[in-house]
Amino acid sequence: MAKIRRIHLKQKKYIPLPGSSPGAIQLFEGALPPKITVYAYDSSEYYCDELNSIDELDEHLKKRPELTHWIDIRGLGDLSLYDYIEKEFNIHKLVLEDIANIQQRPKLDEYDDYLYAVSRMLYVDTGLEIENEQVSFILFPKILISFQENYIQKFEPVIYRLKSGKGNIRSGGSSYMLYSLKDVIIDDYFTLIYKLGDELETIEELLYRKPDKSLMYQTQSIKRAMIMIRRTAWPERDKVNDMIRSESKLITKHTRTFLKDTYDHCMEVIDLVESYKDVTTSLIDMNLSFISNRMNEIMKVLTIISSIFIPLTFIAGVYGMNFAYQDPQTGKMLENNMPELYSENGYVYTMAVMVLIALVQMIYFWRKGWLSNK
Amino acid sequence: MAKIRRIHLKQKKYIPLPGSSPGAIQLFEGALPPKITVYAYDSSEYYCDELNSIDELDEHLKKRPELTHWIDIRGLGDLSLYDYIEKEFNIHKLVLEDIANIQQRPKLDEYDDYLYAVSRMLYVDTGLEIENEQVSFILFPKILISFQENYIQKFEPVIYRLKSGKGNIRSGGSSYMLYSLKDVIIDDYFTLIYKLGDELETIEELLYRKPDKSLMYQTQSIKRAMIMIRRTAWPERDKVNDMIRSESKLITKHTRTFLKDTYDHCMEVIDLVESYKDVTTSLIDMNLSFISNRMNEIMKVLTIISSIFIPLTFIAGVYGMNFAYQDPQTGKMLENNMPELYSENGYVYTMAVMVLIALVQMIYFWRKGWLSNK
Amino acid sequence: MAKIRRIHLKQKKYIPLPGSSPGAIQLFEGALPPKITVYAYDSSEYYCDELNSIDELDEHLKKRPELTHWIDIRGLGDLSLYDYIEKEFNIHKLVLEDIANIQQRPKLDEYDDYLYAVSRMLYVDTGLEIENEQVSFILFPKILISFQENYIQKFEPVIYRLKSGKGNIRSGGSSYMLYSLKDVIIDDYFTLIYKLGDELETIEELLYRKPDKSLMYQTQSIKRAMIMIRRTAWPERDKVNDMIRSESKLITKHTRTFLKDTYDHCMEVIDLVESYKDVTTSLIDMNLSFISNRMNEIMKVLTIISSIFIPLTFIAGVYGMNFAYQDPQTGKMLENNMPELYSENGYVYTMAVMVLIALVQMIYFWRKGWLSNK
Amino acid sequence: MAKIRRIHLKQKKYIPLPGSSPGAIQLFEGALPPKITVYAYDSSEYYCDELNSIDELDEHLKKRPELTHWIDIRGLGDLSLYDYIEKEFNIHKLVLEDIANIQQRPKLDEYDDYLYAVSRMLYVDTGLEIENEQVSFILFPKILISFQENYIQKFEPVIYRLKSGKGNIRSGGSSYMLYSLKDVIIDDYFTLIYKLGDELETIEELLYRKPDKSLMYQTQSIKRAMIMIRRTAWPERDKVNDMIRSESKLITKHTRTFLKDTYDHCMEVIDLVESYKDVTTSLIDMNLSFISNRMNEIMKVLTIISSIFIPLTFIAGVYGMNFAYQDPQTGKMLENNMPELYSENGYVYTMAVMVLIALVQMIYFWRKGWLSNK
Amino acid sequence: MAKIRRIHLKQKKYIPLPGSSPGAIQLFEGALPPKITVYAYDSSEYYCDELNSIDELDEHLKKRPELTHWIDIRGLGDLSLYDYIEKEFNIHKLVLEDIANIQQRPKLDEYDDYLYAVSRMLYVDTGLEIENEQVSFILFPKILISFQENYIQKFEPVIYRLKSGKGNIRSGGSSYMLYSLKDVIIDDYFTLIYKLGDELETIEELLYRKPDKSLMYQTQSIKRAMIMIRRTAWPERDKVNDMIRSESKLITKHTRTFLKDTYDHCMEVIDLVESYKDVTTSLIDMNLSFISNRMNEIMKVLTIISSIFIPLTFIAGVYGMNFAYQDPQTGKMLENNMPELYSENGYVYTMAVMVLIALVQMIYFWRKGWLSNK
Repeated sequence: MAKIRRIHLKQKKYIPLPGSSPGAIQLFEGALPPKITVYAYDSSEYYCDELNSIDELDEHLKKRPELTHWIDIRGLGDLSLYDYIEKEFNIHKLVLEDIANIQQRPKLDEYDDYLYAVSRMLYVDTGLEIENEQVSFILFPKILISFQENYIQKFEPVIYRLKSGKGNIRSGGSSYMLYSLKDVIIDDYFTLIYKLGDELETIEELLYRKPDKSLMYQTQSIKRAMIMIRRTAWPERDKVNDMIRSESKLITKHTRTFLKDTYDHCMEVIDLVESYKDVTTSLIDMNLSFISNRMNEIMKVLTIISSIFIPLTFIAGVYGMNFAYQDPQTGKMLENNMPELYSENGYVYTMAVMVLIALVQMIYFWRKGWLSNK
Repeated sequence: MAKIRRIHLKQKKYIPLPGSSPGAIQLFEGALPPKITVYAYDSSEYYCDELNSIDELDEHLKKRPELTHWIDIRGLGDLSLYDYIEKEFNIHKLVLEDIANIQQRPKLDEYDDYLYAVSRMLYVDTGLEIENEQVSFILFPKILISFQENYIQKFEPVIYRLKSGKGNIRSGGSSYMLYSLKDVIIDDYFTLIYKLGDELETIEELLYRKPDKSLMYQTQSIKRAMIMIRRTAWPERDKVNDMIRSESKLITKHTRTFLKDTYDHCMEVIDLVESYKDVTTSLIDMNLSFISNRMNEIMKVLTIISSIFIPLTFIAGVYGMNFAYQDPQTGKMLENNMPELYSENGYVYTMAVMVLIALVQMIYFWRKGWLSNK
Repeated sequence: MAKIRRIHLKQKKYIPLPGSSPGAIQLFEGALPPKITVYAYDSSEYYCDELNSIDELDEHLKKRPELTHWIDIRGLGDLSLYDYIEKEFNIHKLVLEDIANIQQRPKLDEYDDYLYAVSRMLYVDTGLEIENEQVSFILFPKILISFQENYIQKFEPVIYRLKSGKGNIRSGGSSYMLYSLKDVIIDDYFTLIYKLGDELETIEELLYRKPDKSLMYQTQSIKRAMIMIRRTAWPERDKVNDMIRSESKLITKHTRTFLKDTYDHCMEVIDLVESYKDVTTSLIDMNLSFISNRMNEIMKVLTIISSIFIPLTFIAGVYGMNFAYQDPQTGKMLENNMPELYSENGYVYTMAVMVLIALVQMIYFWRKGWLSNK
Repeated sequence: MAKIRRIHLKQKKYIPLPGSSPGAIQLFEGALPPKITVYAYDSSEYYCDELNSIDELDEHLKKRPELTHWIDIRGLGDLSLYDYIEKEFNIHKLVLEDIANIQQRPKLDEYDDYLYAVSRMLYVDTGLEIENEQVSFILFPKILISFQENYIQKFEPVIYRLKSGKGNIRSGGSSYMLYSLKDVIIDDYFTLIYKLGDELETIEELLYRKPDKSLMYQTQSIKRAMIMIRRTAWPERDKVNDMIRSESKLITKHTRTFLKDTYDHCMEVIDLVESYKDVTTSLIDMNLSFISNRMNEIMKVLTIISSIFIPLTFIAGVYGMNFAYQDPQTGKMLENNMPELYSENGYVYTMAVMVLIALVQMIYFWRKGWLSNK
Repeated sequence: MAKIRRIHLKQKKYIPLPGSSPGAIQLFEGALPPKITVYAYDSSEYYCDELNSIDELDEHLKKRPELTHWIDIRGLGDLSLYDYIEKEFNIHKLVLEDIANIQQRPKLDEYDDYLYAVSRMLYVDTGLEIENEQVSFILFPKILISFQENYIQKFEPVIYRLKSGKGNIRSGGSSYMLYSLKDVIIDDYFTLIYKLGDELETIEELLYRKPDKSLMYQTQSIKRAMIMIRRTAWPERDKVNDMIRSESKLITKHTRTFLKDTYDHCMEVIDLVESYKDVTTSLIDMNLSFISNRMNEIMKVLTIISSIFIPLTFIAGVYGMNFAYQDPQTGKMLENNMPELYSENGYVYTMAVMVLIALVQMIYFWRKGWLSNK
């Protein structure tokens, strides 16, 4: 169990209080105070500002209204944030509840003025736990707001491209930004799957050499991770498809073309997961048959040793019997009692018979193939 | 079996008498006499009255006809109740039969003037049994009637919000009330699933330490509970969807928006159940392989001990044989008979050979990895 | 195997002769001569007549043409019956072939003037065999003809209601009669499923106490019965649905409302079967793990006894060796040969060592948990 | 393995040469020279002629152009046949390729003037091999051409009816003939399935009495045959459905009515196969558990015998030890050394103790239920 | 493991860098420099030229603009290739990225002027590894460009037909060429499947004779290959279907007819794979039961030998006990101590009893069927 470092699922349960008023925001335990960064850009300009508080947002947006804005909010633990968002952008209460309730499945809700999307980010954190983080997006014609649970910035590649002005990112508008972020998220799925796939290969090798209880445990753990990835990728795929087919004007035709690519990636993720799930099933089957094989090996050793020596021990036992040769009281000779013991080569003959028995058995076992190493 | 308290399904069978006239009401065994509470409210007013008998209902409804009414009926064991409902509200006989027959799947039947819905409430009762209770609703424009089997009031959070006037509950009308009650029911599914999930985790840990017959039994029991939850959540989801898409004027547009949320919750329930079902399957697989592993361990102990000592016992047996050194009758020396017994260090050499054999075997087993603890 | 009375499927194979002319009627082996009963009724009148031969039918129908008629034919073994039906009612040859060929799946064929439906009746007969009987219906505007294989009258409850005039049965017309009969058939499915379910519970209990070959056999037998019920209920459900949606004027709107109820019952049957099938699968899994558990138990007994006594026997064997203390020929003392035998407390010490070894092993096994009863 | 005659699949692989020109006809190995029979008939006339060569066909068709013709070609091994068919009837190259390539799935291709259908004939040949033969049909308004691989005439019943003029066969035209032949083919599926089903029952019985490696092998073989039948029946069903719904004028309305019957038969085939497949799965499960049961039995014998006698042997061993009662050198009495050996009834007491131990163990095993025969 | 040469999957992982700009071309590791061959042809003319560099392409295309061109590019490791293609043919960036990213699923993207298709070529390379190579196609009205990873020319049969002018290939235009190449690819699937199928048969035979760990391993390996083929054939089938139904004018009606044939082939591939997958599952099941059977055999040997000899050894042990016949100190006769030892035929009787016990046991085992070879 020590040899392989084990990637495992992080258990995070968010149990809604039964009957709490719908639309009421409930912060989850351990929610972090929000960090807000505003990126404003177009083809020629690019600004990046960290806000001290959500209240500065309005001012920022008004400063350069002609630019596209990406408001990157990491940390969901402040009720005033939701209030501000609700009032400033006129967001439905259910959307805000969903942002705070970090157990949403990937979804896409279209409202009159904006579009609400949820994706799930999957990555292995430093403790080898698989983090399953909710990322919410609110898309306006020129503004994209993204919400993440943790401070870890997984969107660095996008920020880098934004900064350097490479590719379409600056000219694509807010919907292209949404696509770019989703693309990063999906690409991370591959990274995770291949990491898990590598573990599976290591396990398979170890298993072939020596079946082991903890290998089984790990295989199951990876299988569960695979199930979780599939559970995430399926609705993600559906939602990307919904975005492609949506009639919303918020998503440009240019972005739609690229979203098809994302859709294909989702399909690949599901495909890969399915085939790796098959691999785990195979490993579990193999494990059972390998354990049975080992049992066979153990039993063969026991059977060979016992079968050879038990009859021999019996013979030795026979000639260890004390049947009297002479009646101790009358002194009468009892000639039928173990005369072999008094023949000149009785011992030699007996040993010869024993060797013979052992040999016959060895030949029997050899012909059955029980003496070969496998 | 004593350590884990075991949540299990309550078995409740309602066998319709074959051929009984359709629409005929048959009270199930142990049906309780009804307790009736009437809640009348709008944005500004709120009244709550317990009725002594169903006959007082009419009077109550007429007293404040402008208010929204929720008639909460717990206990289904009174035929006069059905008669009254039928006459007072002009309800179809089949609906009344379905209310009394407490084994309905979640359903939604639209009639001209009203809407009949069935949900199933799942919760763990005090005896750790999973109660699967039928809740029926009849929805009129300003009246909602709910029917439950037991007296236990699971709708407390809604009543609390009603009393305190929090949220939309007072202004949403009867369909919003229906939604609110359904929402409580679905939220309870999560509570139940997480409870079962916790048990599964405990079982998994115990299983890894020590596979056990009763753990297996419990896993199966939880699996069956999961199957039952799914069997309930699937049609519930369909029916919620039907409500969203229904053209009935009884369900307001406002309520429909919230029902989408309920729909999402149903999906999450199904998702969760599916993945927990996978976990139970994994546990059963692991159990089988752990049992096989234990068998291997047991057999290894047997094989090691037997393989080492059986040959040694044989050797001891050989030198316990009584081949005579001297013919008792003739006194002739039989020098071939076990001369080892009469060599000066015969015993020492024999013991040395025994130790050697034991050592060789120990090394063999050690190299096979049979001596390691796993 | 003796304890539980075993419900099992009745095997009944009807192999169509390859290439026999389609539409040709082939009586199956053991077909009974038909018994014909004619029920004529409307809201106010009710007559019930047993016919001696099919030829009297025409006369009966003409006597009271304004009444609704249900012609109940039990026993299919008379070719003249088919001839009469064909001519009198102008029925298609394929329909008649299907009535005689008692292996039809539930079906619904709409012809211009009439409607042909097949249901399958499932019940446990006196020999604990599950009877799977075909019931065919031909529906005319005012006449319903039903065909059954056996004489057993399963429609007693309908006849009782017809006689007593309870419910809608007298006023509903021929299509309501068809519904009523189908309703009885479906209700019988529940009876059968619950009987099988009870057996499963008994088996589960016995299995937990003592896994057994015959329990396994029975479980499989019940599983097969469940598969058969599902195989019957699925097309039944489809056909009921077809009846609800059919545009045929033969089925009144009033009947359709009730058929929806039948549809729901079919769904419940399928649901129940699915979950019981899951139970059988669980039982089979549990059985395998219980057998393995028993094996572990057996092996533990063997291992404990063997591991403790084999080394002890070896020690006893050692001190049973006959190494000589004195050379018999020369009389020389061989002091290295088993001096223990001649020490004052050699025996006592040896016994003590044996007890020690036994104790150490007992402790080892106790710590491994092998001594506990499970 | 000797007892049950084993039906098994015939392996026949036809590997298309990669990249061979599409539409090019490749005769398979062992293709037989064609035998051609022409049946010409209408309600009143019937002729049957065997042709010596395909070139005589044209002449035959012209002789009685007003009759319906069924051209029955058995044996596909002559390229000139395809040339003739192509030119005479103006058939697409792909159709001809498909006729020659005997690994087609059931298909239905509609061309402007004709209809091309493929069915697969399944039957057990004399060597107990399941023959999977391709039958191709080309349907013209008044001509049906059928192509089979082998000379075996499976359509005898149709020919008999044709000859005797029974049923609709003479008046139904070419499409009714196509239906009649397909009907024979499907009916043969039932024959095959029931044969396999009978084998399964035999196996189940044998298995219950004595699990066996070869039974397992046979079960798998039957399972594979079932899979093959389903693989054939599914597309057959689809194609029959296509024929029913086809808008082609080649298939008369009269024929369509009968095809619905064929469709139902296909459904029954699939149903039966599914349930027999479940039976094979059950048999495999049962086999595993029966093997484990036998192992339990074997181990119980070993454990009972070993557990009883090993401790007894130990006791015997103890009293076979040679601890000296008197020091041979000093003559000193060593009174602690095995005084039991010198008590008057030592032997009797020892034997009594042994019997007691054996009894206690027997009781223990009896209470565990290990002594009962199962 | 040495006996069967093992076909296995080649592992090739291409992990997209998360967040790399979409449309940016990333060459995979080990990409080969491109080899370009241009085939220009029509019904009467045929030219084949190898280009030294992509820059010569333009010149070639202009030389004979009236001919159909197939540009065959093998090797994808040159960024200038993509630049040239992009500019010369005005290809979308995403298409070029997909060509370079060799892990695409089969796809079909329709653009205004051209059509982009991806297929996957599967074949066993010289090292018995299954190569899974991406082949991309860009289809213009008169030009088809194909892109492959490796230099291996799998399209030889097409080139041969092109050269020799056989079949429709020269007159079919670029879409027929696309079809021809796809046809070769699908045909190769059959070759691969049958190779794997042959291995499975060999494994089955070996397994029946002697279950083995490495056979299991190989079976799993083949199962995984089958899964991979199915994963490839499913989308391929969909895309072929899309091509048939596409409204693009790039694909001629003539080609569509042939594509239906390709579609059928895809279906056959999927069918075959499914049934072979079932075979692998069966093999794994059989393996487990065969291992259990072997265990039974081993245990039977152990049990028979032990059960027979352990009681005998016990008896020998009893008569090897040293209970004294005479008290050594007092000289008193102890007549109860093992008087058998002093009866005249004690030894003979004892041996007779032993033989009897052995015989009884042999008969017992023989009747249980444990002595038969299986």
